[in-house]
Amino acid sequence: MDEYRSQKVLITGGLGFIGSNLAHRLVQHRASVTLLDSLHPTCGGNRFNIEQIKNDVEVVVGDSCDLELVRKLIRNKAYVFNLAGHVSHVESMQEPFEDLQMNAVAPLTVLEASKLENREARIIYSGTRQSYGRPDSVPLVETQLLKPVDVNGVNKMAGEWFHMVYHRAYGIPAVSLRLVNSYGPRQLVRHARQGFVGWFVKQAIDGEEIQVYGDGQQVRGFNYVDDVVDALLIAGVNDKVKGDYFNLGGERAVSLEEFVKLLLKATGRGSYRIVPFPSDKKAIDIGSVYTSAAKFNFATGWRARVPIEEGLARTVEYYQRYREHYW
Amino acid sequence: MDEYRSQKVLITGGLGFIGSNLAHRLVQHRASVTLLDSLHPTCGGNRFNIEQIKNDVEVVVGDSCDLELVRKLIRNKAYVFNLAGHVSHVESMQEPFEDLQMNAVAPLTVLEASKLENREARIIYSGTRQSYGRPDSVPLVETQLLKPVDVNGVNKMAGEWFHMVYHRAYGIPAVSLRLVNSYGPRQLVRHARQGFVGWFVKQAIDGEEIQVYGDGQQVRGFNYVDDVVDALLIAGVNDKVKGDYFNLGGERAVSLEEFVKLLLKATGRGSYRIVPFPSDKKAIDIGSVYTSAAKFNFATGWRARVPIEEGLARTVEYYQRYREHYW
Repeated sequence: MDEYRSQKVLITGGLGFIGSNLAHRLVQHRASVTLLDSLHPTCGGNRFNIEQIKNDVEVVVGDSCDLELVRKLIRNKAYVFNLAGHVSHVESMQEPFEDLQMNAVAPLTVLEASKLENREARIIYSGTRQSYGRPDSVPLVETQLLKPVDVNGVNKMAGEWFHMVYHRAYGIPAVSLRLVNSYGPRQLVRHARQGFVGWFVKQAIDGEEIQVYGDGQQVRGFNYVDDVVDALLIAGVNDKVKGDYFNLGGERAVSLEEFVKLLLKATGRGSYRIVPFPSDKKAIDIGSVYTSAAKFNFATGWRARVPIEEGLARTVEYYQRYREHYW
Repeated sequence: MDEYRSQKVLITGGLGFIGSNLAHRLVQHRASVTLLDSLHPTCGGNRFNIEQIKNDVEVVVGDSCDLELVRKLIRNKAYVFNLAGHVSHVESMQEPFEDLQMNAVAPLTVLEASKLENREARIIYSGTRQSYGRPDSVPLVETQLLKPVDVNGVNKMAGEWFHMVYHRAYGIPAVSLRLVNSYGPRQLVRHARQGFVGWFVKQAIDGEEIQVYGDGQQVRGFNYVDDVVDALLIAGVNDKVKGDYFNLGGERAVSLEEFVKLLLKATGRGSYRIVPFPSDKKAIDIGSVYTSAAKFNFATGWRARVPIEEGLARTVEYYQRYREHYW
């Protein structure tokens, strides 16, 4: 990853889960890193996420939908990781216009700024497997239709396709990775609204009873955040991926029940219970789903490397150590 | 179409091309019709479009993105034709945020109003073939991926999928028709920014030279607006189409050059010339494309019935007669 040395990099959503982990890695690679984050309460930004690198990065607190601000920030950048957004599926149904603002207007703002100021910057977008909705068949591959079942999935689909359009029309070297369930240090774990993974981690550490909806046999792919960061960094420097979209995929597909069992093993505490779906979650549930990352692997050689047992151990260790900053 | 008799119907974009033609038909069917239109200069609304029925419909000049207004209007409606939007592909690239507002926020506003006030109303959305982008193969069928090549195509895709999400999550009976090139009376013909069809019609009537981009052999499907109105009305009352999306399709696929020749025959005036693509249009050109409407035909029996020669004759006659209101 020597390509990033001394390069100017902008990360939108840079104080969030993925963004801050990416920032740590880029600082290791001696990149010059600017983080843009709104620190909006419904987003995942947390200043403690960059505590260890706070003197090595520039932090701009501001809105990714602020075109003038983003124009100014993008001018001299070689790489832009376009990660700012809302990740809550349930909240996207309750506040659809806010979700649209954060997940469609925000990425479009970055692209428009790039069109106006800097068409050379590599732009790496964090799309989502959620945009596929309920799969007709698994593993999900990129030739399958996007049939989102919640507002978040629709807006993230739009956010991704703005990147494809700006690539084709203006030559802007953009790429979209469709993330699966990511987990690891620096994720918001305080409540369940941004997904079950962080919430389960907190409950397990607290020794509480985790509620698993449905029958617990829903399959998911989980990526440890270091694997996600690898994928983002690779996507930024590989010329074969420009103008295209790629699934990431878990190290292996596991059921929710198995995930919870592994998590409880890592904490040595807590318990779980299988309970029926609440109706608001059932309405947007996608069932069993895992993805193939073969297209991205073929283009770049990337694959998820961190076994789920190891990733969970590292995750639990992090939150036990820095608990007061996340609870 | 007796189902519409005495029913309360709301048409967003009701003073525009499709909306006003639909309004005429609904008045014939003795529906109680409310038209919501912003009359915004970049949209296609024209008060003359309803001159003949102006005493038979209620007109509300307002913004489809105004949630409080739409909530009020939707309360007692049995049918909502969710047609308000921008149709310009080139303008969507120049003013992407405006396009997003009109083509994503506006339809979402109608759906949110429906969720809050009236989940029984049938909602019929006008999607677009443009969301497919450049086809891998033709005819385009609904199992093919949406790969939009312009901002308008992305936002219309999002607009459509909000309908699918609100259907699945809240049981709102919504349906999307993916329109192809529509033509006929009451279309904006004053400039070329809303598509070439109206512009060609005006030029032919004025005896001017029409410029056909590329080699003129790009194929398109054309629907006379009466066929489009039929499709919308059928989609509103057929229970088999709820929660689903359907291509419309031209009466037959013709090349642009053939279309222009037929048009010139209808006017008896004008000429044409094949010229190279301007770069801004080339960047978002979708090549040769026509669709299959077999899925909608199978569900409803609809097919395009008006031969292009007849449709063009009626179109030319309309504009010759009411020229001063459209030029």
